[in-house]
Amino acid sequence: MPSHPSIARRPVAWGGDHTADAIADLLAASPAHHVSGELIRKRLKLTRSAVWKAVGRLKREGYGIAASPHLGYRLDREPDTPLPRLIRNGLRARTIGGAIHAFRTVSSTNDTALALAEQGCPDGTLVIAEAQTGGRGRLGRRWHSPAGSGLWFSVVLRPKLAASGAQALTFLGAVATARAVRDLHGVPMTLKWPNDLFLEGRKMGGVLTELSAESDLIRHAVIGIGFNVNLPAAAWPPELKAIATSLQAAAGGPVPRVPLLRRILEEMETRYAFLQRSGPAALVDEARALTPMIGKIVRIQHLGQVREGTVVGMDPDGALLLRSAAGTVERLLAGDVSILR
Amino acid sequence: MPSHPSIARRPVAWGGDHTADAIADLLAASPAHHVSGELIRKRLKLTRSAVWKAVGRLKREGYGIAASPHLGYRLDREPDTPLPRLIRNGLRARTIGGAIHAFRTVSSTNDTALALAEQGCPDGTLVIAEAQTGGRGRLGRRWHSPAGSGLWFSVVLRPKLAASGAQALTFLGAVATARAVRDLHGVPMTLKWPNDLFLEGRKMGGVLTELSAESDLIRHAVIGIGFNVNLPAAAWPPELKAIATSLQAAAGGPVPRVPLLRRILEEMETRYAFLQRSGPAALVDEARALTPMIGKIVRIQHLGQVREGTVVGMDPDGALLLRSAAGTVERLLAGDVSILR
Repeated sequence: MPSHPSIARRPVAWGGDHTADAIADLLAASPAHHVSGELIRKRLKLTRSAVWKAVGRLKREGYGIAASPHLGYRLDREPDTPLPRLIRNGLRARTIGGAIHAFRTVSSTNDTALALAEQGCPDGTLVIAEAQTGGRGRLGRRWHSPAGSGLWFSVVLRPKLAASGAQALTFLGAVATARAVRDLHGVPMTLKWPNDLFLEGRKMGGVLTELSAESDLIRHAVIGIGFNVNLPAAAWPPELKAIATSLQAAAGGPVPRVPLLRRILEEMETRYAFLQRSGPAALVDEARALTPMIGKIVRIQHLGQVREGTVVGMDPDGALLLRSAAGTVERLLAGDVSILR
Repeated sequence: MPSHPSIARRPVAWGGDHTADAIADLLAASPAHHVSGELIRKRLKLTRSAVWKAVGRLKREGYGIAASPHLGYRLDREPDTPLPRLIRNGLRARTIGGAIHAFRTVSSTNDTALALAEQGCPDGTLVIAEAQTGGRGRLGRRWHSPAGSGLWFSVVLRPKLAASGAQALTFLGAVATARAVRDLHGVPMTLKWPNDLFLEGRKMGGVLTELSAESDLIRHAVIGIGFNVNLPAAAWPPELKAIATSLQAAAGGPVPRVPLLRRILEEMETRYAFLQRSGPAALVDEARALTPMIGKIVRIQHLGQVREGTVVGMDPDGALLLRSAAGTVERLLAGDVSILR
């Protein structure tokens, strides 16, 4: 893993250097074998100094590269760091992740993504950071996003959807994450409506959808996904240990982040296309199946009001349907849910 | 009316000078009578030069002020210009217009209002300009907003509403404008759903609601209202003459803009409070009563699709209910409507 120097005032993009990309590709084609400096220089039309600088850059990004004056360079290890070239390598998605902006540290990937969206970035643009200094959850709640231990990223979408489809976009992020986590690591992730990601009864992360709309029509939306991957239990502050978890804890060992990210982007891609074509019903069905609170008696706090009742289902927009003791069914768009029994 | 110099690169706020405000108040207390320079200087603790400068500023803002070396200053005429001190004078609204940002020229009052909203301006903040250089209608359509002849303004709201309440906010602007126009000038304004303001079958202006939301919850919304007040028929480009109009044409003569603006803000204030307390039903009822297309056979274009049918009503969110020839009723959130018969 690369080291994480003091927080930059202005986010610094990383990866994305074409020379380093080309050298990384060349070395990765002969893993654990030396590639001579002369071959690299000739093949890529580079000076000795350009090669040296780019290799230095790769090492700072976490690549294990051995250099020998006689034999050349040898790739011993690629980092498990969400660098654009590593994310793109084998990514089977065209729209989601079609453009990638990666940073060591940003305040919040959602903020960066919203700014890029205002500037007209393409549908599906991915913004990812190794660490967030101002990660946010719903209602501006702080979200701890330390370097190297999680996946903190945002996807800009420009769907032809009414703003009432926002919950479907949150589900898009949650369902894609759950599917990738289950398929790659056999771990059943659940959704705590409206936007929390849970493993074994403890919070692993969450999804935060933010959007800009004209009248009721979404102009652009940002789906922010953040979850703990390899944060060891010992690293948790005591007050979080009982309520928070990481994928590593459930999977029984460290989890490579880049393949997991790629899989999430791919799962988003297929569902995003379907959502645009056929509406949110299928996504809401998938989310419902991940939501163990259906049938439970809950207390929901929302906009200063408290309601209690039985969760009887979800409506086609993903709103929760709550039946009160009096028997009336109310439709709730968001809220903090406590399961009573 | 003040002159309108070349378009400023950066919007220049006007009004809002405390010295000029105080002198304007003092002169307005004795209209058509001279107030001595000495009295002004003593009462307001100002130097001769400060008084002179502030009077110059008032004159540039359109005030008719006569200055006599012996008698002092006399207010002959207040301009009908949306300056903060003139808007505030007698405004019976606390939230809407509680803060006022006025400009000679901005690109779009909605853009300025959205930027102020991001910076945390209070609920009800008013942004108004004498002219817009980049006024926008729905879907980014250009809107002609020449200096001095219209009311071009935006109100920032922070309602506790789901994003699906956006149409109710558009109605809030439209209904308040219709009510003010009817009460002050006896002219029946109608609403062409979803957001156009009509007089006698021709377009007078429109309302553009833009919003930022977290999940489905509105974080802030901007209601932009723009309409032609005193643009004389001779000033219309030929291609607009048949389809556009101004309030002056229907009212039979020039219309003072500032009292009309104040009344619109007041009408918004009462309905905004009610909307927050009791939901959008009453506003949707008012909007429905202003919508002559109900019962008509129409063609609606929206997101590249064309539908035809009979408008059978509005749902509680303000969506249009369209019954097709086959008898199915569809709910439409926005679109371009042509009335067929």
